[in-house]
Amino acid sequence: MESVVVAGVGMTEFGRFPGRTPASLAQEAVRAALVDAGVDPKAVQAAFCGTVFAGPGAGQRALKDLGLVGLPIVNVENACASSSSAVMEGSAWIRAGMAEVVLCVGVESLTRNAGALGPDEDDLFGSMGVVWPAVYGLKARRHMTEYGITAEQLALVAVKNRRHAALNPRAQFRTPITVEEVLASRPICEPLTLLQCCPPSDGASAIVLMTEERARRADTGGRPMVRLAGSAMRSGRFADQAEKGENVTVLTARLAYERAGVGPGDVDACEVHDAFTIGEILHYEALGFCEAGEGGRYVETGKSGLGGGGVVVNPGGGLLSRGHPLGATGGAQLAELTWQLRGEAGDRQVAGARVAVAHTMGGTVYELESNVCAVHVLTV
Amino acid sequence: MESVVVAGVGMTEFGRFPGRTPASLAQEAVRAALVDAGVDPKAVQAAFCGTVFAGPGAGQRALKDLGLVGLPIVNVENACASSSSAVMEGSAWIRAGMAEVVLCVGVESLTRNAGALGPDEDDLFGSMGVVWPAVYGLKARRHMTEYGITAEQLALVAVKNRRHAALNPRAQFRTPITVEEVLASRPICEPLTLLQCCPPSDGASAIVLMTEERARRADTGGRPMVRLAGSAMRSGRFADQAEKGENVTVLTARLAYERAGVGPGDVDACEVHDAFTIGEILHYEALGFCEAGEGGRYVETGKSGLGGGGVVVNPGGGLLSRGHPLGATGGAQLAELTWQLRGEAGDRQVAGARVAVAHTMGGTVYELESNVCAVHVLTV
Repeated sequence: MESVVVAGVGMTEFGRFPGRTPASLAQEAVRAALVDAGVDPKAVQAAFCGTVFAGPGAGQRALKDLGLVGLPIVNVENACASSSSAVMEGSAWIRAGMAEVVLCVGVESLTRNAGALGPDEDDLFGSMGVVWPAVYGLKARRHMTEYGITAEQLALVAVKNRRHAALNPRAQFRTPITVEEVLASRPICEPLTLLQCCPPSDGASAIVLMTEERARRADTGGRPMVRLAGSAMRSGRFADQAEKGENVTVLTARLAYERAGVGPGDVDACEVHDAFTIGEILHYEALGFCEAGEGGRYVETGKSGLGGGGVVVNPGGGLLSRGHPLGATGGAQLAELTWQLRGEAGDRQVAGARVAVAHTMGGTVYELESNVCAVHVLTV
Repeated sequence: MESVVVAGVGMTEFGRFPGRTPASLAQEAVRAALVDAGVDPKAVQAAFCGTVFAGPGAGQRALKDLGLVGLPIVNVENACASSSSAVMEGSAWIRAGMAEVVLCVGVESLTRNAGALGPDEDDLFGSMGVVWPAVYGLKARRHMTEYGITAEQLALVAVKNRRHAALNPRAQFRTPITVEEVLASRPICEPLTLLQCCPPSDGASAIVLMTEERARRADTGGRPMVRLAGSAMRSGRFADQAEKGENVTVLTARLAYERAGVGPGDVDACEVHDAFTIGEILHYEALGFCEAGEGGRYVETGKSGLGGGGVVVNPGGGLLSRGHPLGATGGAQLAELTWQLRGEAGDRQVAGARVAVAHTMGGTVYELESNVCAVHVLTV
């Protein structure tokens, strides 16, 4: 099976850009990724575009103006894991020998496509109010009951990710915040407050994947080669550890670690799906960075922050502060981790990072049993 | 590279089913395909769901009630080529060694999601009235001017495909029609009349792909093994031969034929994208069944009809008469051709069929330069 290399990455700033089409956002990210990979658009042999709401033909519409015509282009939708899934498809084509250079794009404009976010006619849960903030609120409450996580510990996730985002010029929110401000912000779904919920965002990300052989021929100025060392995707139950049932993150990460030949103790930097503060806590536990129930203490002792001595989680600011343009998020995670592994992350560099993990979840509330989880392990 | 086998196929009847959800349609097709493949749902290691308008998480929503949880599920959108693209992704996973048994589903309910069909705010062409019927009408007019195709020859495509559909219990329209009826039906975009345009439809299709090694172990009662012998996908210009430019069908078919080691002269049966009668004519020419400009005579001499001595085109009735539930169409083509190659097509059997081609186009009018074309070559 072909080894897969992350040869180039790019992303737009995330934020609210009412004047920009999804195509324009995607084009900016793609241009950056192609330049970063040192390849001409003509070198791209297949492209995959992850988006939820940018509409039919989003990839074709974005790529044609860059001269990307004549190649296979496939649009991929997997909720918040859409661009993580696009990367999975791109890596499958490379591993199958169907292409040597593939482009994976992620794009979303929730400003322009916000109307699409409401519950549909089949969504009994949504129509009763059991939407994502409610689900995460219930999970937070359960963690409090089972393990005693405190409101302050939850808030610290938002504070830490904002501290990281303040060092990331592409993040949507860059002004540092305090625990007091987080707790005093508008209640959304108790115990979660506004600053504990990810924002609606617009933005795009792009990843160029290559065979190792092809990547060796590219001129990358001697920078380290980042490998997509292990990837896994599963559908399953978005459970927390307390529920003892199948937890889709535990099972997916186990596969990805195994494929990459690493374990949780090897991970230096990780981007997790912190759509809400409690999400990050649950994922610390599911990814094996700490024991079940210890997530609150993990953030409180500073271990998941830059320079904290543990796994640095969401060095780019996470969904909470970098922003969450659904289809673009997975690619943005991989872009951030690629910069980290190359030592190009500037003020938010995780010192000596060699192994990094990107984790996304996706799905609809009424399909909690079949949420998508995608985990990619990158190494240098 | 792993050889890929079409191990099981299934589809619903196509038609208007206002009372059925996309999930219910997909489930019916999937159950049929799994039974046909002789495998339990638990054997499926990855699934791909092609749909345009069934909404986020369509695959996950449909598959969970069949116990298909815990596997990777990816939703794929490529306009009318969505399920052809899902099959491409499934075959990539098999060729990459990432799965031995994959399920590719296609589903659409245009009855329930018809609102989604209007032009969007970026669609300058659509808002001016240059929608698909208009584009095909112009192409028909051009073919008349360049090559002298007649209105009667165009109408014969609809008559032939209805004759085939009359033999297909899963087709939406099964009452035979005459050239006079076709020409007398309501004008849509001159010279195209109503009966020369595919209908909006609901339905689903499913295809089970396996490695050859795994397929050999399945109990198939000694029926012939159908191979996905060559597949290709490209974006590009939906041009006709007269335009002399890049024609996406010509280029895609060339690749697929080459990969399968066959040529147009080897093809016994073919399902092409006859969204409008002129489409089928243009595709005869682009796929190499006749010379440029000879498509009208090809249908007039009966060569593309059952028992006509040429390549039997759209033995299942085509988009025109089997119906066109966008995301389900590509899979339905592959189901039909699999039945043909196994000799299971009943009254519409193409005698001695050994090589078959499925062809879909997809895209938005304002992206004529980056239409998707997918061609799959099946052999026994």
